[in-house]
Amino acid sequence: MTISSFKPTPRTLMGPGPSDVSPRVLEALARPTIGHLDSEFVSMMDEMKQLLQYAFKTKNELTFPVSAPGSAGMETCFANLVEPGDKVIVCQNGVFGGRMKENVTRCGGIAVMVEDEWGKAVDIAKLEQALKDNPDAKIVAFVHAETSTGAQSDAKALTALAHQYDCLVIVDAVTSLAGTELRVDDWGIDAIYSGTQKCLSAPPGLSPVSFNERAAEVIKNRKTPVQSWFLDLSLVMGYWGSGAKRAYHHTAPVNNLYGLHESLVVLQEEGIENSWARHAKMHLALRAGIEALGLEFIVDEADRLPQLNAVTIPDGVDDAAVRAKLLNDYNLEIGAGLGALAGKVWRIGLMGFGCNAKNIEYCLNALDEVLTGMGAKINSGVAVDAAKAKLT
Amino acid sequence: MTISSFKPTPRTLMGPGPSDVSPRVLEALARPTIGHLDSEFVSMMDEMKQLLQYAFKTKNELTFPVSAPGSAGMETCFANLVEPGDKVIVCQNGVFGGRMKENVTRCGGIAVMVEDEWGKAVDIAKLEQALKDNPDAKIVAFVHAETSTGAQSDAKALTALAHQYDCLVIVDAVTSLAGTELRVDDWGIDAIYSGTQKCLSAPPGLSPVSFNERAAEVIKNRKTPVQSWFLDLSLVMGYWGSGAKRAYHHTAPVNNLYGLHESLVVLQEEGIENSWARHAKMHLALRAGIEALGLEFIVDEADRLPQLNAVTIPDGVDDAAVRAKLLNDYNLEIGAGLGALAGKVWRIGLMGFGCNAKNIEYCLNALDEVLTGMGAKINSGVAVDAAKAKLT
Repeated sequence: MTISSFKPTPRTLMGPGPSDVSPRVLEALARPTIGHLDSEFVSMMDEMKQLLQYAFKTKNELTFPVSAPGSAGMETCFANLVEPGDKVIVCQNGVFGGRMKENVTRCGGIAVMVEDEWGKAVDIAKLEQALKDNPDAKIVAFVHAETSTGAQSDAKALTALAHQYDCLVIVDAVTSLAGTELRVDDWGIDAIYSGTQKCLSAPPGLSPVSFNERAAEVIKNRKTPVQSWFLDLSLVMGYWGSGAKRAYHHTAPVNNLYGLHESLVVLQEEGIENSWARHAKMHLALRAGIEALGLEFIVDEADRLPQLNAVTIPDGVDDAAVRAKLLNDYNLEIGAGLGALAGKVWRIGLMGFGCNAKNIEYCLNALDEVLTGMGAKINSGVAVDAAKAKLT
Repeated sequence: MTISSFKPTPRTLMGPGPSDVSPRVLEALARPTIGHLDSEFVSMMDEMKQLLQYAFKTKNELTFPVSAPGSAGMETCFANLVEPGDKVIVCQNGVFGGRMKENVTRCGGIAVMVEDEWGKAVDIAKLEQALKDNPDAKIVAFVHAETSTGAQSDAKALTALAHQYDCLVIVDAVTSLAGTELRVDDWGIDAIYSGTQKCLSAPPGLSPVSFNERAAEVIKNRKTPVQSWFLDLSLVMGYWGSGAKRAYHHTAPVNNLYGLHESLVVLQEEGIENSWARHAKMHLALRAGIEALGLEFIVDEADRLPQLNAVTIPDGVDDAAVRAKLLNDYNLEIGAGLGALAGKVWRIGLMGFGCNAKNIEYCLNALDEVLTGMGAKINSGVAVDAAKAKLT
């Protein structure tokens, strides 16, 4: 056995994530590793908290990146807030609501499911009914931006409703953060988690989270210990807390944090509202091109995420063959359907650094060529111009 | 608020980890991010498993890096192998045995503690007594290389003894992997976890683990679900399993894995036995220098780890002031004492890429200058020569 250095072929990443990482962020990853208790590193951690507060639009003190991917951020929220016997209303309209249910039950909680069709937003009336039917519910959990379908739910309204019934709210913002309007404090979200590899365009491996005072109070008053030592916020916060009191818990992923820090500096330079607006504008251009080709969106216009576009696969076209050709001949990655939508849709990501006109034109052109080459019935030769018309 | 890019001052890392990361590994981190389901990435994952099998000296199929730091690797072992009511004998001779106990109890298990003095190896006779006293014990857990003290325990003998009493064995090899002899298959270790930021000299954030057939069988026959969704091996292995059956679980930390892959390629080029030998040789040089200065090791010679040297702080010397001066004036990090040893020892790491003659000379010279400058009673001007004499 002799294995050589791994030198990946550069790709254009337009799937559900990871998204294209900018040269600035890649360069940051390669800066010299320093100790995780080094005073310079500690200053960087303090900046990281401020930058994440900016991205989440929150003043929550309890705001930091969990040292593991988004799934661990999800588990951090559930493991710290759910105790055995707690009832949690989980709104499911795609893959990730299902994962929330798994989290609830593994924490010993009781999951009450509110199910919506995949591709639809969470139905507020259904949630209200569930709240009426379950006056003992402690928490409502939902996905703001369903990565598996491209549907956006009304996080503001869902949160307000849950609060009327005195429930805490846990929000999955893995794909929404920095791509779509999200105001943690204004909307009163109690606990939220995200990922780094979507609209922040940092490499995967970290999960930004934020908890408000109300959630922190619930955690403080737990009757049972958090079942995970690694994710126990009472311990983690000794590490991410204010400089003077910092205590060793685990060793932070130093270089990955350099990358996230840089991507958040980039976000701050652009301005969070400008980032939302850019995603919205680019989505309209991609949409014009996609529709010019003759493909369709599966999500109603009002609920569509700009950053994750689920489009129908033309009849008779081999899903996997198209994606393989795009990857091999164009170094372009788009996403397959997940769960109930496997084989039925492609998921085209327009996230963070990768959300730009060049990528849109490249993707539309490649799709046109590959689909035409496979004899699919599409309108060839018009997509790029249709997109460009939206960008002037 | 305006926050700029973070540009850490390059340091020489001779604490308990992270250790110095080589330019080759840093360069690998900055390679373009690709999709975690990309065929190239999948091939890299297969290579990763082979490289880790090489490092662990095992043929275990269930060998891969957990997508989070060493603490999560520890939790992966306990959460998957311990069920509520299971009795686990935990040998504690430092900080990390205590963390194991936390893991056992949070999994609903019963921890039977076998305690040894900090700085001593785990006492085999005490473990045997505990095994006799607890015929219903299911698992024995111990730390091979205690990072908090620099003591090495006899993993081979402890494992053999536990097997005589029909217990599974979980070994913490966070600091031992690649720095000290470790033979997972020959010694029959059932489950083991390590970290990347010690003798592998990759950045922190991943935790290599390995499970043998016997452990896999125990996991397969669990009566209760694993309490963590993120760390549930039955799901994670769908992701790290063989290429054809690969299923999405979470998003792997792509660039961090590039770094670990490169560090393992470097290890393979050197040869694992050569890496062990280099650590042993460099330790003798450091030791000669440390003793020439007049400082003492707290661990008996027979049990000393080459890669983690806990040495006494001279009387009347301000621990924190010395470390601050080394960091600020020499960009040199050495470690403070942890837990029961806080304020009593320094921990000098000689790990992986950082385990070399240049670092030893630099560290001895810096210690000599700083301690002399503070009026400590040490033998000045002789340490570097004493070390050099061991390197010819």
